[in-house]
Amino acid sequence: MKTFFSDKKLDYDGSALCPLFAYLNHKIHGDSIVSFIGSCDVSLENMIDAEDFVVSAKIKSDLMLHFIVEIFGQNLMTAVSLQRLLVSIAQNILPQKLRRDGDDLYLDNTKGSFKLSVSIASVSAVSAMIHLGLNVKNDGTPVPTCSLQDLGVDAKTFAIELMNKFSEEYVSIVGATQKVHPLN
Amino acid sequence: MKTFFSDKKLDYDGSALCPLFAYLNHKIHGDSIVSFIGSCDVSLENMIDAEDFVVSAKIKSDLMLHFIVEIFGQNLMTAVSLQRLLVSIAQNILPQKLRRDGDDLYLDNTKGSFKLSVSIASVSAVSAMIHLGLNVKNDGTPVPTCSLQDLGVDAKTFAIELMNKFSEEYVSIVGATQKVHPLN
Amino acid sequence: MKTFFSDKKLDYDGSALCPLFAYLNHKIHGDSIVSFIGSCDVSLENMIDAEDFVVSAKIKSDLMLHFIVEIFGQNLMTAVSLQRLLVSIAQNILPQKLRRDGDDLYLDNTKGSFKLSVSIASVSAVSAMIHLGLNVKNDGTPVPTCSLQDLGVDAKTFAIELMNKFSEEYVSIVGATQKVHPLN
Amino acid sequence: MKTFFSDKKLDYDGSALCPLFAYLNHKIHGDSIVSFIGSCDVSLENMIDAEDFVVSAKIKSDLMLHFIVEIFGQNLMTAVSLQRLLVSIAQNILPQKLRRDGDDLYLDNTKGSFKLSVSIASVSAVSAMIHLGLNVKNDGTPVPTCSLQDLGVDAKTFAIELMNKFSEEYVSIVGATQKVHPLN
Amino acid sequence: MKTFFSDKKLDYDGSALCPLFAYLNHKIHGDSIVSFIGSCDVSLENMIDAEDFVVSAKIKSDLMLHFIVEIFGQNLMTAVSLQRLLVSIAQNILPQKLRRDGDDLYLDNTKGSFKLSVSIASVSAVSAMIHLGLNVKNDGTPVPTCSLQDLGVDAKTFAIELMNKFSEEYVSIVGATQKVHPLN
Amino acid sequence: MKTFFSDKKLDYDGSALCPLFAYLNHKIHGDSIVSFIGSCDVSLENMIDAEDFVVSAKIKSDLMLHFIVEIFGQNLMTAVSLQRLLVSIAQNILPQKLRRDGDDLYLDNTKGSFKLSVSIASVSAVSAMIHLGLNVKNDGTPVPTCSLQDLGVDAKTFAIELMNKFSEEYVSIVGATQKVHPLN
Repeated sequence: MKTFFSDKKLDYDGSALCPLFAYLNHKIHGDSIVSFIGSCDVSLENMIDAEDFVVSAKIKSDLMLHFIVEIFGQNLMTAVSLQRLLVSIAQNILPQKLRRDGDDLYLDNTKGSFKLSVSIASVSAVSAMIHLGLNVKNDGTPVPTCSLQDLGVDAKTFAIELMNKFSEEYVSIVGATQKVHPLN
Repeated sequence: MKTFFSDKKLDYDGSALCPLFAYLNHKIHGDSIVSFIGSCDVSLENMIDAEDFVVSAKIKSDLMLHFIVEIFGQNLMTAVSLQRLLVSIAQNILPQKLRRDGDDLYLDNTKGSFKLSVSIASVSAVSAMIHLGLNVKNDGTPVPTCSLQDLGVDAKTFAIELMNKFSEEYVSIVGATQKVHPLN
Repeated sequence: MKTFFSDKKLDYDGSALCPLFAYLNHKIHGDSIVSFIGSCDVSLENMIDAEDFVVSAKIKSDLMLHFIVEIFGQNLMTAVSLQRLLVSIAQNILPQKLRRDGDDLYLDNTKGSFKLSVSIASVSAVSAMIHLGLNVKNDGTPVPTCSLQDLGVDAKTFAIELMNKFSEEYVSIVGATQKVHPLN
Repeated sequence: MKTFFSDKKLDYDGSALCPLFAYLNHKIHGDSIVSFIGSCDVSLENMIDAEDFVVSAKIKSDLMLHFIVEIFGQNLMTAVSLQRLLVSIAQNILPQKLRRDGDDLYLDNTKGSFKLSVSIASVSAVSAMIHLGLNVKNDGTPVPTCSLQDLGVDAKTFAIELMNKFSEEYVSIVGATQKVHPLN
Repeated sequence: MKTFFSDKKLDYDGSALCPLFAYLNHKIHGDSIVSFIGSCDVSLENMIDAEDFVVSAKIKSDLMLHFIVEIFGQNLMTAVSLQRLLVSIAQNILPQKLRRDGDDLYLDNTKGSFKLSVSIASVSAVSAMIHLGLNVKNDGTPVPTCSLQDLGVDAKTFAIELMNKFSEEYVSIVGATQKVHPLN
Repeated sequence: MKTFFSDKKLDYDGSALCPLFAYLNHKIHGDSIVSFIGSCDVSLENMIDAEDFVVSAKIKSDLMLHFIVEIFGQNLMTAVSLQRLLVSIAQNILPQKLRRDGDDLYLDNTKGSFKLSVSIASVSAVSAMIHLGLNVKNDGTPVPTCSLQDLGVDAKTFAIELMNKFSEEYVSIVGATQKVHPLN
């Protein structure tokens, strides 16, 4: 799995969750996780999560760290399982103990519950994809949030560490499917 | 996903990693995670991990807490991804911070690295299965290990919490595959 | 599998055969069969059956009882098999003996062959779907038809019975895939 | 789908539900439904239905009409759906109205409920298979049964009609998967 | 697999690589390979090969022999494997020894390397498709090319031979998946 | 895809066509093609080709060059397509023009048709596998054969070239599935 951090700011409106994003934008071929920083404002038209769509949810933040994962020849069940693992790895890298609830990370304290991230996974006929976005700052978010800034985390450093760990895990998972006898 | 803790001691020799284990032994029908306590001594004949087989690894412990997961209609890539998630959830429940390396949990301290668990996932033509075993005590283990006892964790209480959290996660993952638009 | 009868009239132009129809319109999450009453007039643009498209078939009726089935993680071969089963169950509920020819139901008598239903099944990258429509009246149909009215059948009562029986059958089929040993 | 009635008596002990049965015994290559007459007595060792196995069910009859279906490149969900359709087609051919409950057919009357058939479907890594057996006589059955003899049905004539209708339906189902646009 | 040569000239702009092309245009139902002659000029909008898209490649020729293969219920990995086989069969039919490099055919001589063909394979939720185009003449091509005319090959005769051989191979491949025992 | 030529003679009785052959014997992990030299005598028990089994075919040769391919997470249809491609690549490497008929290579001359090779492909729940054997000499073969010796080909040199070319093709095929847009 290839990893790539793009220093070029890119605002995320949902259209990046599109097959071959890494190839078309960065000539990265094959399974990949790429990362970039930019605002987040997903239009209803690009909202692939029906749960958000039916309530016209605002998926917004003025500055987010984005990850786009693309894996080929895998189904949606695998993609969502890997999405949870990606969020779980992020959780374990962060310096403070956050709570993972499915694909969301929250900082819970006496003042309430503060959402760090948004995420979704879906699939086309050629590949499965994951988007994970973490607030870099809390500006422009429609709900109580926390941010990498609050946690004292540098976005790019974190991005590179998360991409490396996820890529290693992915390679290890693929390897684990290639060393077992079938069951009878 | 059904959960079940069996109070009846069962020694694990690898033969339990067999399609319909939960149904044949506990009349539990469908996707399930079941747990029981017993020794672990996997015979070469039942060793489905070729990595262990080629080095004639000893997969042994006098007392382990075992989990058997079975999911139907899913492939091995999903099963291994879920296995990693299961181990990750276990890691987050435990009172001390352990290190997860793929499907293994280690307690690292100044004296060295102590292995808590063994795990494997494979697949038949009808279902995918996961075995996860955690040392209850350190007796009879062929490598430096730690155990639930060392961590001050009651095996059954832990088993029930892990099964509940994994079952919730599984249901949530399945749900997440049923609410998204396909990508174009 | 969830069942739902919507009392709100909805005219069917083919656009309802779209992933997440039940979720987007009725917040029904997961495998489902929903039913409603309305006219039927499928535009060429929404005609997913190429057999109809190439002959510019009119798929029309002034009043039909519609069923939309959505199942996730299943392929088109399964969906068409289930479609035939759905029509077969409908056939067995109806008070008169109709003839099933694939996914169509006909009333045959000395005056000719009268078509009761239209149906289609297809698949996206996330789900497989079935549409089944039965004439409530014979008005506005382009071929000789019969209708639920002719058969003395109340549309809503029939809809609920068919949805319940199909849902039970579906659950039973899924269950039957989770209790057998693989073949060698 | 090829059809074949074998006039040679063959006692069914479960071992015939084995990939390539039609090819190895009758040189029939590809998707097929074959039929033959013989006793039924499934040994526990060959019992692939765990539901029967856990209760040590007797699957017995002195004379049964057997069907073995084999389809290649299809999954178990499709196979079970087709199994239900096969039983449903059998139900519609029989001269009396029987009740179908999943994959079983019953004759219900004032004296009770009489079971006509047994059936199972499973899958290997190369093909999916269905066994359907209908009592020709009631001798040697462990539960209250009815038989083709009771219904005044000639076994071979019935077999040929059922095989032809199922084969036509199968071809029609495959055809229906090859004429639709994908959904978006 | 059905074969069909259409004598009607059809210019290829990429839009023919669309599910049900053979059915919608020629009422050919099921797995098929069809062939026709016409210019080639693939618009960026219809360019499904991202490798070409990112470099805004010109996929052009004034006169090409085109093949469109459609197979149902198969995945992209199979489709690309079959694409290579199709090109390999073409290579073996041609009177001169060309070099196959993946899905491309080249005539190598002292003057350089001359490209005979373009090809691509992709997949929708209902079918997998292959396009193969061979220059009939060298006019209007953006790179050094050779053509069937150079090789002294009649386009239609060649088309029919290639379609027949590919169709036979495809049937033989499907047959080979239906006569083997599964591995343990 | 890893390639490996084993200098250690190994007689092939069919048992090598077993999941994880390369891993268990040569610690080669993942998709692979391995080659070795040895006699060929496939016992009926290990004969996975039912076509051979039903005629009790002798699959024998005193000295053959063997190839074992294993690919993970792919189905049988892909494996057979790749098998044909493997044979086709072998055909193109050989110094004389042989005829490929499906998965067989023949030398045709005025004296008759001489078979160079045997091949089979099958699948388990974890991987798909191909065996290809080419006569090094003609001794001990049950039908008229030709051999690499006849063709003046050194077995090991040929093996390495074929493995390299097949491995490159495989990587190129996988790459081709990861650079296309889905079709609508």
